[in-house]
Amino acid sequence: MQLITVAEYLFRRLAELGIENIIGVPGDFNLDLVELIEHDERFRWIGECNELNASYAADGYAREHGISALVTTYGPGELSAVNGVAGAYSEHIPLIKITGGIALAKQAKNLPLHHTLLNGAYDQSLKIYQQITCAAEILNFDDPGAQIDRLIESCYQHKRPVYLQFPQDLVTHLIAAPQAKLNLVNPTTTEQVSKIAELTEDIKVQISNAKKVVVLVGELVERYHLQALVQQFLQDSSAAYVVSWGAKGVVDESHPQFAGMYAGCFSAQEVQDYVENADCVLALGWLYCEINSGTFSAKLDPDKLIILNLNSGTINGTDYTDIPFVALVESLCHSHLKIAPYPRDFSANYLLKPEQLAPQIEHDNLIYRLSQFLQSDDTLILETGTIAFTSGYYTLPHGCKIVSSVNWFSIGYALGATTGISLAKSKGRTILVVGDGSLQMTVQALSTQLRYGLKPIILVLNNSGYTIERIFLGKNSSYNDIQEWNYLRLPAAFGGEAYTRQVSTDKGLVEALNDTKSHANQLCLIEVMMDKYKQPPALQKLADIVAKMKK
Amino acid sequence: MQLITVAEYLFRRLAELGIENIIGVPGDFNLDLVELIEHDERFRWIGECNELNASYAADGYAREHGISALVTTYGPGELSAVNGVAGAYSEHIPLIKITGGIALAKQAKNLPLHHTLLNGAYDQSLKIYQQITCAAEILNFDDPGAQIDRLIESCYQHKRPVYLQFPQDLVTHLIAAPQAKLNLVNPTTTEQVSKIAELTEDIKVQISNAKKVVVLVGELVERYHLQALVQQFLQDSSAAYVVSWGAKGVVDESHPQFAGMYAGCFSAQEVQDYVENADCVLALGWLYCEINSGTFSAKLDPDKLIILNLNSGTINGTDYTDIPFVALVESLCHSHLKIAPYPRDFSANYLLKPEQLAPQIEHDNLIYRLSQFLQSDDTLILETGTIAFTSGYYTLPHGCKIVSSVNWFSIGYALGATTGISLAKSKGRTILVVGDGSLQMTVQALSTQLRYGLKPIILVLNNSGYTIERIFLGKNSSYNDIQEWNYLRLPAAFGGEAYTRQVSTDKGLVEALNDTKSHANQLCLIEVMMDKYKQPPALQKLADIVAKMKK
Repeated sequence: MQLITVAEYLFRRLAELGIENIIGVPGDFNLDLVELIEHDERFRWIGECNELNASYAADGYAREHGISALVTTYGPGELSAVNGVAGAYSEHIPLIKITGGIALAKQAKNLPLHHTLLNGAYDQSLKIYQQITCAAEILNFDDPGAQIDRLIESCYQHKRPVYLQFPQDLVTHLIAAPQAKLNLVNPTTTEQVSKIAELTEDIKVQISNAKKVVVLVGELVERYHLQALVQQFLQDSSAAYVVSWGAKGVVDESHPQFAGMYAGCFSAQEVQDYVENADCVLALGWLYCEINSGTFSAKLDPDKLIILNLNSGTINGTDYTDIPFVALVESLCHSHLKIAPYPRDFSANYLLKPEQLAPQIEHDNLIYRLSQFLQSDDTLILETGTIAFTSGYYTLPHGCKIVSSVNWFSIGYALGATTGISLAKSKGRTILVVGDGSLQMTVQALSTQLRYGLKPIILVLNNSGYTIERIFLGKNSSYNDIQEWNYLRLPAAFGGEAYTRQVSTDKGLVEALNDTKSHANQLCLIEVMMDKYKQPPALQKLADIVAKMKK
Repeated sequence: MQLITVAEYLFRRLAELGIENIIGVPGDFNLDLVELIEHDERFRWIGECNELNASYAADGYAREHGISALVTTYGPGELSAVNGVAGAYSEHIPLIKITGGIALAKQAKNLPLHHTLLNGAYDQSLKIYQQITCAAEILNFDDPGAQIDRLIESCYQHKRPVYLQFPQDLVTHLIAAPQAKLNLVNPTTTEQVSKIAELTEDIKVQISNAKKVVVLVGELVERYHLQALVQQFLQDSSAAYVVSWGAKGVVDESHPQFAGMYAGCFSAQEVQDYVENADCVLALGWLYCEINSGTFSAKLDPDKLIILNLNSGTINGTDYTDIPFVALVESLCHSHLKIAPYPRDFSANYLLKPEQLAPQIEHDNLIYRLSQFLQSDDTLILETGTIAFTSGYYTLPHGCKIVSSVNWFSIGYALGATTGISLAKSKGRTILVVGDGSLQMTVQALSTQLRYGLKPIILVLNNSGYTIERIFLGKNSSYNDIQEWNYLRLPAAFGGEAYTRQVSTDKGLVEALNDTKSHANQLCLIEVMMDKYKQPPALQKLADIVAKMKK
């Protein structure tokens, strides 16, 4: 039996998952662990300026790579990452949160240690993380290898974060090396297998009985790495399809069967009508949440809706539970189903045309110019705020996708996530559009990007504050203002070099985007000046709904 | 009966506590509340760039003012403040954490709202905050006024943070106005009163029987606003006294009876010997924790120790519980106790002399030059890290105090806290010494200080990374390095003006400190260049203890 340290056990599992960058912040309780990471050829340590940014970066890395590891110290360090990990929970992102914990031998002495709450307990962090993870454990001497495997498998299978507290005195403790690979497949019982066959037939019946069928592709298709399979299914079945707000780019949007983005009233009117007039909507991995449903304005008749979701769903008006999502989607995609084409007459009439663009930059300019700018393999990150409400309107080339925080909606997320996405991407560009208020939340992430030679193209929308809030309340209230920064001076202050340019006109925007091509070896920071009251149309719809509800 | 809104009820209570600045970040679930704050003449809204900084600022405001209010939105906003609030818990800081919550009517509909975890529950934040507060509630329609009072009284009496979630639909709900003022006095029963009299006599007996008595003044004396009383007691009783690490400046350190800072082996050797050779140590409100005890190196014989702590303590070797701290200290201070002088022969021999200073800046230069620079009413904030380990060595004029995070030890805290302390101070300067790694954590706080015209004097120690960690592990490991920023360019990047200067010599330091006097109308940022391996002696002692423990 080969004996290895618990740290090495964890490292082998992380390497097995293809994790090459470990993101975090050092601190006294994790130094032993971080020292080993630094000197391990399988990994690169990515030191962030703070733990919130580290958690966002780990979220971004997981979205691009499939899973990520985030290392902080006990107490202050891990508690600064709570928001980011909670966001990963809300959005179904598999992130392994590793905390360097107090040595168990030290805990047994019950001392009032620094980084503790001084109330005689050391398990508050565990209790906090239990609220925002699908599994949380403090490693102990009994069988830490099994604990590690249990946590990572849970993370991967449920696509939710897990919390792994690694006490100092376990780091070099010796245990048996793993005998087999991790089980990354969601387990399926014999009963479930026959039930899946049955449900697949039910779906085929419901779809064959319908004349106007549209497939709604949701973000969980991407989380479970089913994009290629689903794409093939869509083509083979000749189905018309749309994507959810949070699934922009998950399947090919340049394909003639693609009909747009659907999110209730946040959709283009043509797309909304098209989807809601179908007599069968097959929703695959659609995260039912406020934004994806257009603040619950989506009018999808339950009897006409087939939902295949995480272990639950609806077929023919009957709800089911306890069926593994992946296995059911695979079964359906392999079922040689043919779907009647559902013709549409709007043929992307809703898409922007250059003659509609204003000379001064508005949201439409960004949508149109960036849509033109995007290439296959690019990732476009759209920050929460006004910008997020343009998500559905981008025209994406095949292989290009949009990342946004569709439900957690934490401002500051996107700049942090950009670090992780840039790290994980093997090809294509990382392009971020971020608001000024959001950028101020997590601005240190720029420093990390410069430190590690990352080269995102960042468009900072300078619209003088929290524009998204002005539409709801406090149009001119000072709490919606922010300090006016000189954004273009940030890279130099952070000790890095970057291409920087401020633009306020459509012409300037086109030039600046073009300039980035000859500055591909640098981080590019473009400050986009915009009127502080400009809102994208989808946001106006939301504001109307909210105002109506208030009455 | 006067009817007022629940918001007004809360505001009256905050005003009653003298809170004039309400610190926070707006977000959709708290907009109604923040809009009212903005237009309320009793308050000034202080908008921070992010919630972690806001929580640190609220902690600082509470340290200076006595209590503070921190407002964020539900979900992402409040969860970004968890670390800061946990720190306030650990350090006994009364901070009212107010979250703008989801309307109760909306919660009842069980919708998958944005900013939620999408698992059908809305109470995870409450459960998280229950771990790091002394009381936590979501307001409801039954009796929200009573809830508000209960929470604030608990906060004030226990000197710990509380969590008050304020659902949107309660903001303008009408309730009866408060009939009486808040009860801010820790309640005392008749039984306790007689027990206090008895304990006071016991203390007097133990002290009268001792020949070498020293009073150890701890930070809880300040938290409970007992400084003036205790100072009078020390003078009247003619007692020799020392302060704990976390209580620097709580009592007059320029007084002849003052003998120094005591924290076990972190003390100057002379002070440690002096305290540990006493035959009676009267510890008033001493927060027993790792740093205050010199990593548990303090050798204080329990039989010779009188401890008056929060509702518990030790007198004559007997432990007691359930006695209100404030009432017992008041009783003792009013007991006309006379204490035999405990002479000492070191007469501050351990204090630095200018001829000992190196030409290039080391920690001793900072200690000596800042000690010279400090004036009555100044507050010196020392960040966690190498800098914190110099805390005990400053010579403070009467009325000047040091703020540091003595136990939570979260790097990044001090720059954030500086905002709140500057806001709350009515006279004297706010001076901060912060490390580069710490500053990078929360650098946006500088922007907030510039935005609101605050004028702290900030010394940034540029020692190329996490110097405190290099002494423990990874002396030359890259995870202890950070991105090299151009710190002096930060104010301009953040859209503000400041006096800036980089210094590396003792002479330059003296000049720069002197320059701040003619730039008193500006924020001053001094970059202090220091060798990356320079550690203060107290930190070396800690490293030795840790290395020994590892073996």
